[in-house]
Amino acid sequence: MKFRLALVGFGRVAQSLAKTLVEKRAHLKRQFDFDYKVVAVADTIKGSVMDQRGLRLERLLSLVQEKGSIKDYKEGTKGLSAIETIARADANVLVEATWTNLQDGEPGLSHIRKALRKGLNVVTTNKGPIALAYHELAALARRRGCHLRFEGTVLSGTPAISLTTEALAGSTINSIRGILNGTTNYVLDEMAAGRTFAQALKTAQELGYAEADPSSDVEAWDSAAKITILANVVMGGRIRPADVTRQGITGITPEDIGDARAKGKRIKLVAKAYRDEGRIRAQVMPERLEESDLLSHVSGVLNAMILSTDVQPEVAVVGPGAGGDSAGYALLSDLLAINRILNDEES
Amino acid sequence: MKFRLALVGFGRVAQSLAKTLVEKRAHLKRQFDFDYKVVAVADTIKGSVMDQRGLRLERLLSLVQEKGSIKDYKEGTKGLSAIETIARADANVLVEATWTNLQDGEPGLSHIRKALRKGLNVVTTNKGPIALAYHELAALARRRGCHLRFEGTVLSGTPAISLTTEALAGSTINSIRGILNGTTNYVLDEMAAGRTFAQALKTAQELGYAEADPSSDVEAWDSAAKITILANVVMGGRIRPADVTRQGITGITPEDIGDARAKGKRIKLVAKAYRDEGRIRAQVMPERLEESDLLSHVSGVLNAMILSTDVQPEVAVVGPGAGGDSAGYALLSDLLAINRILNDEES
Repeated sequence: MKFRLALVGFGRVAQSLAKTLVEKRAHLKRQFDFDYKVVAVADTIKGSVMDQRGLRLERLLSLVQEKGSIKDYKEGTKGLSAIETIARADANVLVEATWTNLQDGEPGLSHIRKALRKGLNVVTTNKGPIALAYHELAALARRRGCHLRFEGTVLSGTPAISLTTEALAGSTINSIRGILNGTTNYVLDEMAAGRTFAQALKTAQELGYAEADPSSDVEAWDSAAKITILANVVMGGRIRPADVTRQGITGITPEDIGDARAKGKRIKLVAKAYRDEGRIRAQVMPERLEESDLLSHVSGVLNAMILSTDVQPEVAVVGPGAGGDSAGYALLSDLLAINRILNDEES
Repeated sequence: MKFRLALVGFGRVAQSLAKTLVEKRAHLKRQFDFDYKVVAVADTIKGSVMDQRGLRLERLLSLVQEKGSIKDYKEGTKGLSAIETIARADANVLVEATWTNLQDGEPGLSHIRKALRKGLNVVTTNKGPIALAYHELAALARRRGCHLRFEGTVLSGTPAISLTTEALAGSTINSIRGILNGTTNYVLDEMAAGRTFAQALKTAQELGYAEADPSSDVEAWDSAAKITILANVVMGGRIRPADVTRQGITGITPEDIGDARAKGKRIKLVAKAYRDEGRIRAQVMPERLEESDLLSHVSGVLNAMILSTDVQPEVAVVGPGAGGDSAGYALLSDLLAINRILNDEES
């Protein structure tokens, strides 16, 4: 199958995917028989353009870099909304990379619903729709015979979802522990090195780890969304981010950190999902970890997830949870996973 | 497809798979539409039996547990050799779990060749054939349209192969570092806690980690075989275990360990594969690791693999490298991976 991609949301993550698709085109074709064209790009701020003959990605990337907009792109149909783009584009895959909204999942949720109803496959890095409506969307995808993949929603480009649903298929996941947010982990490390919370957060913002409004990170909403996704997808839970027992790191003082350190422990923001009398529950809280705990050695913007299964007491994956081209790469790995399945079907 | 399995080698690993297949039969059918029968079991010591109607696995397991032999099993054809079994059994998957031989890969190599030539899929935990003849066997499988999977050869039931070839498909692996042998890691930990090499090794043997002849572990041949598999499968190398620059842990003294510890470091047996002027090279050596190195915190019989890719500087997986039902589980995960592909083809 030739992939005909519609990119909805053309921020840093989608641009990173576009760059990789351009740079690796020959390699992807040769190594994986993966062939593609991009038939539409739609972004609320940067503009939208659709051309079923295929867009020139290099041109779009240079336009957005030079002018912050793709409105000067010459050919194709301009100015369609994201929803109109999904409705009209001759695409077979939606790449949804708009912003995360944990209140109602919009606009990403409507984009994904619209695409799946039309029979498009969907790959996304958008945590909102998956944290709020995974079971609905997965059922819709099954009914329409489509693939829905979202590797980048947890641990960014480090495999977490495919590790559990594919590589560890067949074992029962009893519990999950993780450090799922890089910003707070970086801030806690800096505080352990002697900075105040405010200083550490400021550095994180200057380095581009934390948003201008860091509340999603430091109040642990981001971690809550991610552990919700893991609980629902991997353990069959049916929880929402608001169900997660949640405590951020804003209350942590240098004294807390020093006191932990004096006892040979480290404070980390730990997300957990576990079984409790047949129900799946989740929490995110600062914890004092022993030196023997692998999570206590996950530093800086690294993230980690540790699974306990019926077969193996502890399987961990550790890697970058954000930054660089990691999230864009997660989208590529989802596309390649769909490609593997479709190529196998054809052969 | 209904899986018709021929189990060649019926030691601890294959028995563990058999036990899991029995216990999870309903779950595997319901969750993955995975259905199976075992049409033959062949083991040099425990005997062999073939019945295309399907063998009663519970009975075979209780026989081998009570008598160390399956020769008293009532129905079916008895006494065939492994090669005759592969030739005559009405199987579509060979489960190869005979012993590892790093000299010439036999008898596993002949078993796998025979099965692939006949058009059978193969899953194996046998490091010999994969370390010595991966490229030959993979090409043979491709020509015959069969699947060859060997997740359990590295990191046992902890995903290493599928993580790199599937979850991380699309990124280029620049280098691999790992702790790939649990016995030596356990012995080094015990030495760090004050034991001598001989004491630590004796405990490892008593706990069942180390073989009666531990030379494969402590001389680092086991690690060399595993890094060879990773180098060839994941990085496209063409090396053999004998090409690996190799140094075991027999020369490590308590003084070495104490000296490292005094400097805040830990000695670990580290396997590496890397690119050197366009060629893939590999080595296994004791190294003094900094406290900031994730590998320095991988303790006991845990194993770990850290990948450096073109997209992400460090992606790590950590988990049991042996023991319990881990390797048997690796075989199940390989079977489920084949099942996913075949079920997708049918749908």
